[in-house]
Amino acid sequence: MTKPCIICVAITGSVATKDNNPAVPITVAEQVESVHEAFEAGATIAHCHVRNDDGTPSSDPEKFARLKEGLEAHCPGIIIQFSTGGRSGAGRARGGMLPLRPDMASLSVGSNNFPTRVYENPPDLVDWLASEMRTYGVKPEVEAFDLSHIFQAVAMNRDGRVPGKLYVQFVMGVKNAMPVDREVFDFYIKTVERLAPEAEWCAAGIGRHQITLNEWSIAAGGHTRT
Amino acid sequence: MTKPCIICVAITGSVATKDNNPAVPITVAEQVESVHEAFEAGATIAHCHVRNDDGTPSSDPEKFARLKEGLEAHCPGIIIQFSTGGRSGAGRARGGMLPLRPDMASLSVGSNNFPTRVYENPPDLVDWLASEMRTYGVKPEVEAFDLSHIFQAVAMNRDGRVPGKLYVQFVMGVKNAMPVDREVFDFYIKTVERLAPEAEWCAAGIGRHQITLNEWSIAAGGHTRT
Ligand SMILES: [Zn+2]
Ligand SMILES: [Zn+2]
Ligand SMILES: [Zn+2]
Ligand SMILES: [Zn+2]
Repeated sequence: MTKPCIICVAITGSVATKDNNPAVPITVAEQVESVHEAFEAGATIAHCHVRNDDGTPSSDPEKFARLKEGLEAHCPGIIIQFSTGGRSGAGRARGGMLPLRPDMASLSVGSNNFPTRVYENPPDLVDWLASEMRTYGVKPEVEAFDLSHIFQAVAMNRDGRVPGKLYVQFVMGVKNAMPVDREVFDFYIKTVERLAPEAEWCAAGIGRHQITLNEWSIAAGGHTRT
Repeated sequence: MTKPCIICVAITGSVATKDNNPAVPITVAEQVESVHEAFEAGATIAHCHVRNDDGTPSSDPEKFARLKEGLEAHCPGIIIQFSTGGRSGAGRARGGMLPLRPDMASLSVGSNNFPTRVYENPPDLVDWLASEMRTYGVKPEVEAFDLSHIFQAVAMNRDGRVPGKLYVQFVMGVKNAMPVDREVFDFYIKTVERLAPEAEWCAAGIGRHQITLNEWSIAAGGHTRT
């Protein structure tokens, strides 16, 4: 593998709180310092959620703006990726920070179940988020929680809704969605290579599956999120 | 293949109306006659939706009761499968006909996108539908609109939520869900055989894909829906 491995750091998802882990960074200042440490250790992409002061997920563009400023000052050159995932807001509020023109943003292109609810990404919202990303020059990282999401990503790439080189992340280990399964992981890669040979892929395992997915991804020549 | 091929007839889905095709049976009497013709031609399972008089989808248990009576009188021995799909009702109304004890009922175990909306099957609704099917001795046909749904079916089979021999239907060709793709079809079969070697599977293609899926299924030793 001569391809450089992109290490994406997700310093904080949207679910963990200080109750689960006192080290979880909540404030913008804490998040910036946490990314800074990862940046010095070699992280290339910072995948960012923002929080309210009580630790609950937020989609407030003002918070994203302050986080972006902080990262640009402390971690010059890091690729800033904002989450448009559904845990932090509903409907178009999920994309309200895209006019800030982060380098990248996550983009879910299908719906699936989460542990206790439906992760809703209706087709018109997906199309709107993708069009906002085109408008503001934001590169999408397509989140594939299931196999059909890879097909949807490719369809959107071919018809121009997600232009340029496709970047897909496989998400495994979410309860009621796709479990961590080696044969599925291999089939995901095979499918991306068959349908979109130019595409790049990475993989994320949730919770205790994180290390497994990191190992599989690096060995298979993909990028990885820690 | 010495295994008998089950031919499942879905005389009417929930979407087509007389506007699309004047031959679509709408009333219970029309549906019974339509199944009767298919039964005489060799159909084994009748997959049933019911309609309002204006052709719109319904989940009225009273209509299902009259359909069941008609099928039992005209097509003795046919396996009656009621749809609990989300096009005909919302929430628990989708399972309101299960106390009629049809032989089988469809059971979606995950969520996915449909052409213009989210097909919502939240985990608690899935569990409730499965428990009603156990209560009334109804055999589920698990609808797999995506790969993770096969994993979910196997998990529910292993923990007893869907007891007995698993019966899974692959659904392909729905816009914004899984397209018709031969390598995915083969991987679906491989996955069922790996995770649940005793399971039976069948496949349904939507619209113009129906014939393709019928041919693939019969050649691969599965059952099929026409
Ligand atoms: Zn995230
Ligand atoms: Zn710093
Ligand atoms: Zn149906
Ligand atoms: Zn008859």
